[in-house]
Amino acid sequence: MKTNRIAPKILLLSGLTLLTTAALLSAEMSPETEECLMCHEMATPGIVGDWQRSRHARFSPMEAMGKDPLERRISAGTVPENMASSTIGCYECHGLNTGDHADAFEHFGYTINLVVSPKDCATCHPDEQHEYNESKKAHAIANLRDNPVYHALETEVIGMKVIDESGVQSLPPSAHTAGESCYACHGTVLTVDGLKTIDTDFGEIEIPNIANWPNQGVGRINPDGSRGACTACHPRHGFSIEVARKPYTCAQCHVEPDVPAWDVWKESKHGNILLSETSHYNWDAVPWKAGEDFNAPSCSVCHNALVTDPSGDEVIANRTHDFGSRLWLRIFGLVTSHPQPAHGLTTTLLNDDGQPMPVTFTGVHAKTGLISPDEMDKRQAMMSAVCRACHSTDWVNGHFEQFDLAVAEIDEMVIKTNGLMQQAWDLGLADPANPFDESLEHQWVKQWLINANAARYASAMNGQDFAAFKYGWWGLSQTVVKFHEQVSKVVQEKE
Amino acid sequence: MKTNRIAPKILLLSGLTLLTTAALLSAEMSPETEECLMCHEMATPGIVGDWQRSRHARFSPMEAMGKDPLERRISAGTVPENMASSTIGCYECHGLNTGDHADAFEHFGYTINLVVSPKDCATCHPDEQHEYNESKKAHAIANLRDNPVYHALETEVIGMKVIDESGVQSLPPSAHTAGESCYACHGTVLTVDGLKTIDTDFGEIEIPNIANWPNQGVGRINPDGSRGACTACHPRHGFSIEVARKPYTCAQCHVEPDVPAWDVWKESKHGNILLSETSHYNWDAVPWKAGEDFNAPSCSVCHNALVTDPSGDEVIANRTHDFGSRLWLRIFGLVTSHPQPAHGLTTTLLNDDGQPMPVTFTGVHAKTGLISPDEMDKRQAMMSAVCRACHSTDWVNGHFEQFDLAVAEIDEMVIKTNGLMQQAWDLGLADPANPFDESLEHQWVKQWLINANAARYASAMNGQDFAAFKYGWWGLSQTVVKFHEQVSKVVQEKE
Amino acid sequence: MKTNRIAPKILLLSGLTLLTTAALLSAEMSPETEECLMCHEMATPGIVGDWQRSRHARFSPMEAMGKDPLERRISAGTVPENMASSTIGCYECHGLNTGDHADAFEHFGYTINLVVSPKDCATCHPDEQHEYNESKKAHAIANLRDNPVYHALETEVIGMKVIDESGVQSLPPSAHTAGESCYACHGTVLTVDGLKTIDTDFGEIEIPNIANWPNQGVGRINPDGSRGACTACHPRHGFSIEVARKPYTCAQCHVEPDVPAWDVWKESKHGNILLSETSHYNWDAVPWKAGEDFNAPSCSVCHNALVTDPSGDEVIANRTHDFGSRLWLRIFGLVTSHPQPAHGLTTTLLNDDGQPMPVTFTGVHAKTGLISPDEMDKRQAMMSAVCRACHSTDWVNGHFEQFDLAVAEIDEMVIKTNGLMQQAWDLGLADPANPFDESLEHQWVKQWLINANAARYASAMNGQDFAAFKYGWWGLSQTVVKFHEQVSKVVQEKE
Repeated sequence: MKTNRIAPKILLLSGLTLLTTAALLSAEMSPETEECLMCHEMATPGIVGDWQRSRHARFSPMEAMGKDPLERRISAGTVPENMASSTIGCYECHGLNTGDHADAFEHFGYTINLVVSPKDCATCHPDEQHEYNESKKAHAIANLRDNPVYHALETEVIGMKVIDESGVQSLPPSAHTAGESCYACHGTVLTVDGLKTIDTDFGEIEIPNIANWPNQGVGRINPDGSRGACTACHPRHGFSIEVARKPYTCAQCHVEPDVPAWDVWKESKHGNILLSETSHYNWDAVPWKAGEDFNAPSCSVCHNALVTDPSGDEVIANRTHDFGSRLWLRIFGLVTSHPQPAHGLTTTLLNDDGQPMPVTFTGVHAKTGLISPDEMDKRQAMMSAVCRACHSTDWVNGHFEQFDLAVAEIDEMVIKTNGLMQQAWDLGLADPANPFDESLEHQWVKQWLINANAARYASAMNGQDFAAFKYGWWGLSQTVVKFHEQVSKVVQEKE
Repeated sequence: MKTNRIAPKILLLSGLTLLTTAALLSAEMSPETEECLMCHEMATPGIVGDWQRSRHARFSPMEAMGKDPLERRISAGTVPENMASSTIGCYECHGLNTGDHADAFEHFGYTINLVVSPKDCATCHPDEQHEYNESKKAHAIANLRDNPVYHALETEVIGMKVIDESGVQSLPPSAHTAGESCYACHGTVLTVDGLKTIDTDFGEIEIPNIANWPNQGVGRINPDGSRGACTACHPRHGFSIEVARKPYTCAQCHVEPDVPAWDVWKESKHGNILLSETSHYNWDAVPWKAGEDFNAPSCSVCHNALVTDPSGDEVIANRTHDFGSRLWLRIFGLVTSHPQPAHGLTTTLLNDDGQPMPVTFTGVHAKTGLISPDEMDKRQAMMSAVCRACHSTDWVNGHFEQFDLAVAEIDEMVIKTNGLMQQAWDLGLADPANPFDESLEHQWVKQWLINANAARYASAMNGQDFAAFKYGWWGLSQTVVKFHEQVSKVVQEKE
Repeated sequence: MKTNRIAPKILLLSGLTLLTTAALLSAEMSPETEECLMCHEMATPGIVGDWQRSRHARFSPMEAMGKDPLERRISAGTVPENMASSTIGCYECHGLNTGDHADAFEHFGYTINLVVSPKDCATCHPDEQHEYNESKKAHAIANLRDNPVYHALETEVIGMKVIDESGVQSLPPSAHTAGESCYACHGTVLTVDGLKTIDTDFGEIEIPNIANWPNQGVGRINPDGSRGACTACHPRHGFSIEVARKPYTCAQCHVEPDVPAWDVWKESKHGNILLSETSHYNWDAVPWKAGEDFNAPSCSVCHNALVTDPSGDEVIANRTHDFGSRLWLRIFGLVTSHPQPAHGLTTTLLNDDGQPMPVTFTGVHAKTGLISPDEMDKRQAMMSAVCRACHSTDWVNGHFEQFDLAVAEIDEMVIKTNGLMQQAWDLGLADPANPFDESLEHQWVKQWLINANAARYASAMNGQDFAAFKYGWWGLSQTVVKFHEQVSKVVQEKE
């Protein structure tokens, strides 16, 4: 095994950033990992190569913990003694907490887990896991599946249709279609049902029989009961901070038509500059120094990275893995904008109409469960500090004033449409028993889920072209007009 | 202050193109700028870093004017003496022409302008500003707002809706929604209303109170009365030619569904090659040498850059900042294609039906105000010369022949739809008093603004896939069929 | 002529990968090519520069044939003696097989062909041409034009509309609109009609008069009767393997809404990683070593490249230029998914309803002409081997199980819609004489061509977000509901 000596060659050939020789000569891999690699260098050479270029393959936790506080990529104060001075290889991650894992199994003499969970990663990265664990992302399954309103919409979208005399019915979504659409991003529930035998290049082996696997959704429920998948953003087995910071990571899920963050950012001046200058940026630096390592922000700069001034000494924003924690207003309208939920688990919200939602269809915010005006101010101040790394106070204030006024108008357009929908229900044009299963209701859903979101995201992230003819305002206006024509035609016929 | 000495370190760390040491040791920043930076290195470190890596921070106008004509990035013959030999820093730009600026104010002992305008940039870049100033871009506000036809459409798109007994009415667009949609690209009117006090990290300060700010739209009306924003394409504070030449800059505004230039180019062979080879190109060279600095063209190569042969001696196309000046046919159909307007301000156009438009709804070109056939030929020859840097004469001719024939058919499809719209108005299916406020009229607008534009752009820029099922021909055909079904149903009912 | 000596300078200036000096000093260009360049360095400097940086300009076939088998980029065992030891320049390609070329002509003393065809490229690359020649791509014209069902749809999409008393009729598509939409990708038929005189910078010259030119479609019929255009993916005149391997190449044609391969990949974890790490990959290596030269796959890795393990010794997948040959299930539904056609020419397929299609509208697969279950298994094993370079056997199996189940449900949704369409035809809501020319039929086409394809591609390539609200499942569900509402309204009116 000469992996550590092979690594530099790979790095040079691949044109990767040159590393200090000192670092490369330090920590060694564990004997267990060495044994893993004896087969896996042949069985899965791609992920072995990916790992060999990673920091995990080059540094020990001890070395990582020895860095200056702002340069640390590891939040643990101590790590288990047997892991401290070797590099972090196959066995160090897959061999953790096997007692808690329903997917633990015997594999060529070792007990390992098939799935590495955030709780396992927390061995070295506890702060990251704690922050993440309380976020909306970590509760992404329950927030959709266990909310009867959203689940009814989900069922209408992906449930197999049955056509009978009473009309079109949607069956409960099948696990595979759910996993190949909504829950690919939201996450699946990994359940283990004993062992199964599979054929591999090394013969038959026994492995855990896991349902709804593979999946990398942000709210995945793991075989140890933990929530989330670090690999949703730090993909296997490089766990690269560069990849996580690049906008393409967020663009796996946060894309048009319903959550057009990527699309709007791409059309913004931030996207314009970053995409033009990306090869000049230092994507790997910790801390991430505004104006020195990067100019224009990717998603990560504004929403979660540890950002400092160019010297690296002055913190502009602290690192967080609760990706909503710098946000005050939730512009993903359900159905209008509203203060961010106070907790990541949103099923407990209750609006004045008794629905488990943050607002009523007439735009009234829920009395509890949303963050307070003070907390909103605090968070806006936090985000503004990031903006001010490059923009004057006046510029930042001006942006948020325009944003507030524009969002108020967009919400007003949604509320008007909700009024027309209510009129249509009252007139019998549609049946509110299921508010999502008729064509007129589909138009209404498009209004708040797609048209309004597009316009709000466009203003929030300065990709305003998106708010004109692409889903945004033209969609909002056309829908109001068309709804009114459909409703008033029936009113006239009745008169 | 050691900014000039810091710069090289930043450059090396960021992986930016290495600069000649000679250049770095030459011009110094002015004492005024040095004083600005004393606070702004802390207040807005991001833009300071951006500026430090810019040419403005490294060269004086004197040095820039000393270059060979084709290598010059500065068109002034002389510059004010007090600016000639220092680098171009904060004060050199923000301190210009303060007597003309309604946004001039006292700021820690200096009179400066909050907004730097194209007229200010013209101190060193007069040719660029003169060219730009007569372009359609510079008149982008008036061309939309002051044209009653387009303004009626704008009002329908972004005006808040009021629903009463007479139907749905659109209120005049609010300033904030206008600025967060159409006028984000077209530009806002910056009006100054005295001073206001704001809280900053350095305490309370007084600054001009500017409405509709921030904005970087191409037709912005500045507090000195000038038109445009150089930063729309050369973003603050790097003013990078690399960024302006990258297609992401144009893609802030020239995107689907209405102006799908980016989308079509991305699917073209030009886009394919450039996006694949982008890291091999020299994006900063002046002049820009075809076949040497780049292979496939970005927007800038065809529409505005100074392009030479590989030796750098033979000019293929001269630089222009009137981005329409190499174009003969306007394929952004209003409502069909037509010769380019002769002037950037298009509100004075008058078609045979008395509308301020370049064509009638039946496709008849306005008698005046459009460029002549001779001028069209001259411009096509100019563009063809750029094409011929890489393509044979026959290839280029063949392309433009296919394009002409395809566009003629697309226009014909629009004219047929216009005929059906007229029939619908005559039959009372819609009310032509406002030609844009009913659902049937929305379909008609989509036909010429989105479907037809998509197909024309796809042919012009060889991203023809876009013309099949994505908005283009399928949209054109479906709309004609659907329109005819709607109209003929009424005709049958009347019979 | 000092092209070879100029080349290194260009390479350094352009930041291209440095080449070994040895290579640059070896083969020389032929005297004929030297003479070509005397004019073309001035006439078309861009393509000359592109060629100068290419391998064609730097190596002779003799050198290329001397490489180790896996490193060879040339499949010929021998090449014509007169070509063997010079570099491959203008004359070497344009002067080939002139006796077979209807576009051969006299050009300044040489007989050359205007169009270089795959048959010409086969002089050095015979395996590539043979593989390609039997692929669906090579038959892309006939597969569309000569299939009466698909041609009827094509006519509805791009045929000029005539409106008369009987309704809207689509004329046969014009050659130019066909070439500027469907056949830009599928390819045009290049027909030569004598010579024509054109004006060039070097005066009047005579060249072949070729209709439907320029075109780079994958199924182009060339003036020598051969099929295809190598330049569709290896664009002129660099013929770069880097460009062909980049996803932007495939994205010229394989894009939403009908074939959303690029769009889905871009949103997948593969796209996320590759787009984030692209500058670290070695895009030019042959063989292409998984885990060493690249991590995440571009289109080429899975569908056609020679891929080995990191050592370069162990072949994971052999190179193929029949891009469908690693595929078992055809998810481009016509109208449902089905086993891949056994031959590239698909016009001979015949379903149980007598249509030249792989499946009936009720989803029954054609009895002949599709690959067998054994062949399907063999191909899936081939693709799985590529997946297993980075993924465990269990992961790969799990992915394909989810995919199979998801596709079955998507097909079921299409079949249900086909049933509703049939009901609409039976009820007289639409006339099945032409199944594509009414609005209701347009909705039906969208269901199988756009909504269902989106959902299938999203599952196949793990860009599942695309299957939720962007065309996929929401589109499928809405269409079933809307179709049922339209049909049941008529049923109720009749009762």
